[in-house]
Amino acid sequence: MTTYDPGNIFAKILRGELPANTVYEDEHTLAFLDIMPRATGHTLVIPKSPARNILDVDATALAHVMNTAQKVARAAMRAFNADGISLQQFSEPAGGQVVFHLHVHVVPRTEGVPMRAPATYKEDPAVLAQQAETLKNALAEG
Amino acid sequence: MTTYDPGNIFAKILRGELPANTVYEDEHTLAFLDIMPRATGHTLVIPKSPARNILDVDATALAHVMNTAQKVARAAMRAFNADGISLQQFSEPAGGQVVFHLHVHVVPRTEGVPMRAPATYKEDPAVLAQQAETLKNALAEG
Repeated sequence: MTTYDPGNIFAKILRGELPANTVYEDEHTLAFLDIMPRATGHTLVIPKSPARNILDVDATALAHVMNTAQKVARAAMRAFNADGISLQQFSEPAGGQVVFHLHVHVVPRTEGVPMRAPATYKEDPAVLAQQAETLKNALAEG
Repeated sequence: MTTYDPGNIFAKILRGELPANTVYEDEHTLAFLDIMPRATGHTLVIPKSPARNILDVDATALAHVMNTAQKVARAAMRAFNADGISLQQFSEPAGGQVVFHLHVHVVPRTEGVPMRAPATYKEDPAVLAQQAETLKNALAEG
């Protein structure tokens, strides 16, 4: 097992060294929009504690991440008038992992609309900012 | 939100009305091989309590499911000499859900081998039985 590298971009977001379109934050987790969304409202949920992926994360941190992923999923259904949700979590390069800080993808889905392939579409920053506001408000409503 | 339908096939597996290639079981969860694997060792983890998907499952049941998914992921890396793991969880038909009892897919991945498309390959029952034995033993080793 490769160890945790604190130089990854999500660790930089957690330290405030890189910006993010944050939609939710609590003591244990942070959720922000993916800048290369596979569908509208594609959100990433990460633990604040260091963990590379599913293979090394501690059970409590994982439970916190999933609890937040569920909150995001429920709010995204309303915020984006979605018909369903696809969750994905990739561990190690063979598993599809690109950034080596554990993250769960919460992808709002619309009937008949396939997900874009990973890393094929970069969203307009102004659109992302507006979507983040919409989702943040839905999350605040609970 | 559509309510939980106890006639779904995973509920039947939980009640012992349908067979499954079980690899792990505890008080709260059951894990068994997918009969239409997207890769060797593709396992499904489900809660024993009724839950349709991420939108209605209670947080404790979800934490138990993820804890088991992590155990399966770690054991599958060894059992199938995998290079990584892809986790997926689909909610509602638009999200990719086909069976309406919450389940998390744990898919062992091998470098350079893409996942099969869903429901395109039915594994030989004898091969599944052997793979279940292999994974069960790896899980028992912890």
